[in-house]
Amino acid sequence: MPMFLDTLDAGFEAAFRDLLAAKREDTPDVDDIVAGIIADVRARGDAAVIELTARFDRLELTPETLVFTPEEIDAECAKVPEHERRALEQAAERIRAYHVRQMPQDQRWTDPEGASLGWRWTPVSAAGLYVPGGLASYPSSVLMNAIPAQVAGVERLVICAPTPDGKANPLVLLAARMAGVKTIYRIGGAQAIAAMAYGTATIAPVDKITGPGNAFVAAAKRRVFGRVGIDMIAGPSEILVIADADNDPDWVALDLLSQAEHDESAQSILITDDAGFGQRVAAAVAARLETLERRKIAAASWRDFGAVIVVRDLNEAATLSNRVAPEHLELCVADPEALAEKITHAGAIFLGQWTPEAIGDYVGGPNHVLPTARSARFSSGLSVMDFLKRTTLAKMTPEALRAIGPAAQTLAVSESLQAHGLSVRARLDRLNER
Amino acid sequence: MPMFLDTLDAGFEAAFRDLLAAKREDTPDVDDIVAGIIADVRARGDAAVIELTARFDRLELTPETLVFTPEEIDAECAKVPEHERRALEQAAERIRAYHVRQMPQDQRWTDPEGASLGWRWTPVSAAGLYVPGGLASYPSSVLMNAIPAQVAGVERLVICAPTPDGKANPLVLLAARMAGVKTIYRIGGAQAIAAMAYGTATIAPVDKITGPGNAFVAAAKRRVFGRVGIDMIAGPSEILVIADADNDPDWVALDLLSQAEHDESAQSILITDDAGFGQRVAAAVAARLETLERRKIAAASWRDFGAVIVVRDLNEAATLSNRVAPEHLELCVADPEALAEKITHAGAIFLGQWTPEAIGDYVGGPNHVLPTARSARFSSGLSVMDFLKRTTLAKMTPEALRAIGPAAQTLAVSESLQAHGLSVRARLDRLNER
Repeated sequence: MPMFLDTLDAGFEAAFRDLLAAKREDTPDVDDIVAGIIADVRARGDAAVIELTARFDRLELTPETLVFTPEEIDAECAKVPEHERRALEQAAERIRAYHVRQMPQDQRWTDPEGASLGWRWTPVSAAGLYVPGGLASYPSSVLMNAIPAQVAGVERLVICAPTPDGKANPLVLLAARMAGVKTIYRIGGAQAIAAMAYGTATIAPVDKITGPGNAFVAAAKRRVFGRVGIDMIAGPSEILVIADADNDPDWVALDLLSQAEHDESAQSILITDDAGFGQRVAAAVAARLETLERRKIAAASWRDFGAVIVVRDLNEAATLSNRVAPEHLELCVADPEALAEKITHAGAIFLGQWTPEAIGDYVGGPNHVLPTARSARFSSGLSVMDFLKRTTLAKMTPEALRAIGPAAQTLAVSESLQAHGLSVRARLDRLNER
Repeated sequence: MPMFLDTLDAGFEAAFRDLLAAKREDTPDVDDIVAGIIADVRARGDAAVIELTARFDRLELTPETLVFTPEEIDAECAKVPEHERRALEQAAERIRAYHVRQMPQDQRWTDPEGASLGWRWTPVSAAGLYVPGGLASYPSSVLMNAIPAQVAGVERLVICAPTPDGKANPLVLLAARMAGVKTIYRIGGAQAIAAMAYGTATIAPVDKITGPGNAFVAAAKRRVFGRVGIDMIAGPSEILVIADADNDPDWVALDLLSQAEHDESAQSILITDDAGFGQRVAAAVAARLETLERRKIAAASWRDFGAVIVVRDLNEAATLSNRVAPEHLELCVADPEALAEKITHAGAIFLGQWTPEAIGDYVGGPNHVLPTARSARFSSGLSVMDFLKRTTLAKMTPEALRAIGPAAQTLAVSESLQAHGLSVRARLDRLNER
């Protein structure tokens, strides 16, 4: 059974704090192994990648077969059933339409002193997307990572996707093709991250690496950060549903389970202003768990990290939700827009009972790569911004320098940075000679 | 003497690669010490912070005196000479005016399927700014960190600024006041970072920590990352100047020295299409070094990491500069705007000979916290965005769900995530019953 809390309970605050502090992930410490793998790939390049792929993925490669040929991609894509292809196309179109709107504007203006100021956005030159193998090989993640990069204008976009025992996922290859990725390496793990960060004879290095992965991949991303940019290191998935009694308990139960089924460390929380409704949802979860394919995982997640919290009113619900700062937040209430106004921290908000979170995982349009583990307090989901960077621009005229240069000189002197001051002073002196 | 390179030299490519790969920072490994300090602050709170401050800053504090009182701040601010106050005010106004323009827009729209989509920006609730003590205590950095946070709408903004031997920097306190920061703790080092990340009885935890610091501060920021957001970990400063022969060699020399004087690990590079001009700049640097206050530091930086590169034309200059991806880039050429169009990676561009980089350090308006160590390939300088996060919004109508739900269900099934599919299916079934 999940935790049942009521804000009127004497022990509520302590129990809620425990819920917030619960360490849901017990990542194995693979940092030393990963450091060795990265050093090996840096030293021996392709040879190391090929040996590690043989060892971990039971797949014998050569420098020539590290990458899928266009014909191999064609052959895999041809295996995708028509209805899956159409679903993927609809998803890709909607994700693209959403992300195109995220493209930020350059700005340039002249201020009253005559200084011309502004900034300009430019794409990262090369990005590498990691796609896990095996069970966690999600074509939807390929679209969610590759389309923002493509929209941002990244020139060279590559994918590393391990194929354990040589088995590729046709939908992953089709998703890559839809997102404009032509270069796909059949390698994975820390060796793939190292190859993308440092390059090998066959694999050109990239500037940014994104995408989910196991503990080895996460540790490798942390280690190459600085050499290249990375996206967030995602933790277990989370959902918080705020629902009033005017909902179908089974729908809410399924929404909670759609996070719980991801991972035994996932977390599903229901906040409701009706204790009876909370009980009905818990009963519906129990009923669905009897037949769910991934019931072992979902049951463990719901038992260990699930919670039903009863509040006095929706204001209290918003306050608690903001303390959680959930990755996914569903607002199944009569006026979801009004409640959303009170939400200050959440990765993604799903408004109203016709918007199950799963829509956002696939076809809604917004990105499904979102901040976990309360990091929505300070970070955002993946977007085109992750594949762009901003260069600031400043151009002084002699008049502008005359107006603001003296202040720069004064501050440079106060910071004991003489050459800074002199670089301004030398120019001001010239102006004064005129 | 710095390195002289000519792109026509046989060994140019190898030498340029060496220049790019040069490891300029040899950060002491203080990670174990820092881990101990953080654990101590988490376990013992204020008591640990006070003991560590006594040990490292030779300053005896109590929980009551951890924070500056308003009267203490008044008294320190009163020590600032009038011309410095005015310079700081001009800087603050210009920095604010620039950063106000960075505020991103919320968006909301309804797509052809009837789905309402969009996003909303919200500020981080609480941010902590670190300001180093001693020589690196720069009031300009207070403005550059605090003003973007203030513009973003951060509700609670605190500063940690160590005061070794009890000596405060009046200009730092005045800069904090100008930027609206009322809470200033006189603590520093890893203990200050730990206190802001985890909180103590006296110091409330924050959600985001920014600002420069020594090796201990940098290691502590790396360690608390995830618990809170952090800005970049900045490396030694860098400048690249592209200049044609139509410049005063002394101005360019001073611009190069204004980076070199920061730090023995700083790097200053001149790229010019005129070998004679390159020689004249090198001579001007040597002449200025004879009398410069920080000549020991600047001479070491110029000797060990400085470079003069002669190119055939400005296209070649842009190509090399993009491979460097410099933190600061000055374009001292006849048509700097045209050359800027060819620049794809740079933290900040200073256009034309009347725009010395030092203007950008203080009063230009753009932020002076910029990506170092070639990270302008994938990251941007500090901005209001660092103190905001984006929540995505999605709202389906029954009709929208009918239009896109089936695709979500298909993809959920293809990824073996049954509950995801059922959460959509249950709603579609209800619609079909109607």
